[in-house]
Amino acid sequence: MTDIAATDAVAGRAGYLVGVDIGGTKIEAVLIGPDGRVVASRRVPARRGGDNVLDDVASLVRGVAGDRFADVAHVGIGTPGRVDAATGRIANVVNLDIDELDLGSLVSGRLGGIPVHVDNDVNAAAVGAARVLCGDDLSGTVAFLNFGTGLAAGVLVDGVLQHGYSGAAGEVGHVPVDPNRFDCPCGQRGCLETVCSGASVARLWPTADGRPPMPDLIAATRRGDGEARRVLAMVTHAIGDTLQIVAQSVDPRLIVIGGGMAKTGGPLLEVILDELHARESACPFLKGLDLGARLRLAPVDAPVGAIGAAWAS
Amino acid sequence: MTDIAATDAVAGRAGYLVGVDIGGTKIEAVLIGPDGRVVASRRVPARRGGDNVLDDVASLVRGVAGDRFADVAHVGIGTPGRVDAATGRIANVVNLDIDELDLGSLVSGRLGGIPVHVDNDVNAAAVGAARVLCGDDLSGTVAFLNFGTGLAAGVLVDGVLQHGYSGAAGEVGHVPVDPNRFDCPCGQRGCLETVCSGASVARLWPTADGRPPMPDLIAATRRGDGEARRVLAMVTHAIGDTLQIVAQSVDPRLIVIGGGMAKTGGPLLEVILDELHARESACPFLKGLDLGARLRLAPVDAPVGAIGAAWAS
Repeated sequence: MTDIAATDAVAGRAGYLVGVDIGGTKIEAVLIGPDGRVVASRRVPARRGGDNVLDDVASLVRGVAGDRFADVAHVGIGTPGRVDAATGRIANVVNLDIDELDLGSLVSGRLGGIPVHVDNDVNAAAVGAARVLCGDDLSGTVAFLNFGTGLAAGVLVDGVLQHGYSGAAGEVGHVPVDPNRFDCPCGQRGCLETVCSGASVARLWPTADGRPPMPDLIAATRRGDGEARRVLAMVTHAIGDTLQIVAQSVDPRLIVIGGGMAKTGGPLLEVILDELHARESACPFLKGLDLGARLRLAPVDAPVGAIGAAWAS
Repeated sequence: MTDIAATDAVAGRAGYLVGVDIGGTKIEAVLIGPDGRVVASRRVPARRGGDNVLDDVASLVRGVAGDRFADVAHVGIGTPGRVDAATGRIANVVNLDIDELDLGSLVSGRLGGIPVHVDNDVNAAAVGAARVLCGDDLSGTVAFLNFGTGLAAGVLVDGVLQHGYSGAAGEVGHVPVDPNRFDCPCGQRGCLETVCSGASVARLWPTADGRPPMPDLIAATRRGDGEARRVLAMVTHAIGDTLQIVAQSVDPRLIVIGGGMAKTGGPLLEVILDELHARESACPFLKGLDLGARLRLAPVDAPVGAIGAAWAS
């Protein structure tokens, strides 16, 4: 059970919260008590299709809440795809065969009218990671960089998610930084996501037997493999660009490295710090920002997506 | 006189505000009445050195306030250089020969203890431009891009300036986007500022007899000058990168083009829109953001730096 201190945000809400994290392979839910702690969690394999997702989410909420279902004041859902957080509608959830779905109100309807908020999975994970890492103190700006299948950031200011005018806040993965790099499925060329997302690293450094590519790439570089060194330099350069873009636009006090790639752990942090130190050695301005001191790995032992979904709004 | 509607922000303040814009060649001040309108303005040539600046700012505040000096509740100052908005201290104001100066408290002392807030000139202009363009409605995110000697952005969320953790929010001019471009005095290579700041355009497209370079560059391109076309393409490409970085990090509802380069007016907006449309034609995601519809030129007929300084906090 993860210890999350209650904050002012919960003071106005009676009872319990449920957070649901919809993923491509599993759906996970947590029940959060009035004191802000996770008191139960549950997961099921994800099934494709809108009706299945609605059924699974609704029964997971009832299941994780158990006897406390009547005390659940609010359900939050984090999901991949395009999300309209204001209406709870989702679209283009390719992994689950969903074109369009009025997820928020349909889940609410199946749960007797409990208020449901829907946000994208990166934003939910950003909230969850910030709550786990920062506890009570969510003041200032926290950026969560999701190095997953794609690359995107979730940004919180004083604990509040920044969605932006068109829901595009944090979509840094599709900033083109070098026209000589790879074509991006988005239609641009050289998007950061084409080099330093988890999927891109898997493409640039294929591994056998399903081993995750980033630890393998770092290990091969350390063994002196020249090709690994070349690929890793490209990847860490794109990560460095991403960090500078986020730092020099929203200037967060904490920059959380999340997504599947973050499971690499310490070795990932080391190669990112090497990249930052190389850049800082040439640039006093950048050195003054001291971005390395602001970096954290996302917690790996807590269901940050589901926890954050409960609190996102 | 510029018509600025009063907002809630002023409700808690009795009386009048004074805003001061310290520039490299002039210092300008405005007096803003309880109804939010500019009721007087005054300017003096800038003199170098900390004591001169203190004298000039203090006498300009008394001068612009006139009979209303006793009713002035707050003075705001916008200045170039490094600014600590929390303490009012400034440093490295190269144009005015100031290494370090406790500007806020020293001006306050010379004005009988009136509260003084100091912010950087780009942030102050951001607030002023937003107030002139948006009037009462400062909801959502507004980004002000200052294409001046350097390149930096000021970002407001619901009317509140975002300084960030280290005061680096909006410092997008020193994001390196192409390692093959120019060395930057900051120590990096390829910073956006090396291509699309006003000073960089003046370097890339020198003009005779002090004519501003950007209108000349656009006119030469339209006359079919190949070198002008090449330089303009490089400049608008860097502007496009800047717009994407700002849009895809903070996703503003309005993006204001300011700084000296903005005085180019309509022709500048046209070449920026051409660049955006070329990018959008390849990328549905970018087309969906419809950044062109969010662009505005900074007002040229209002002293936005001084107005914004009065309201910045």
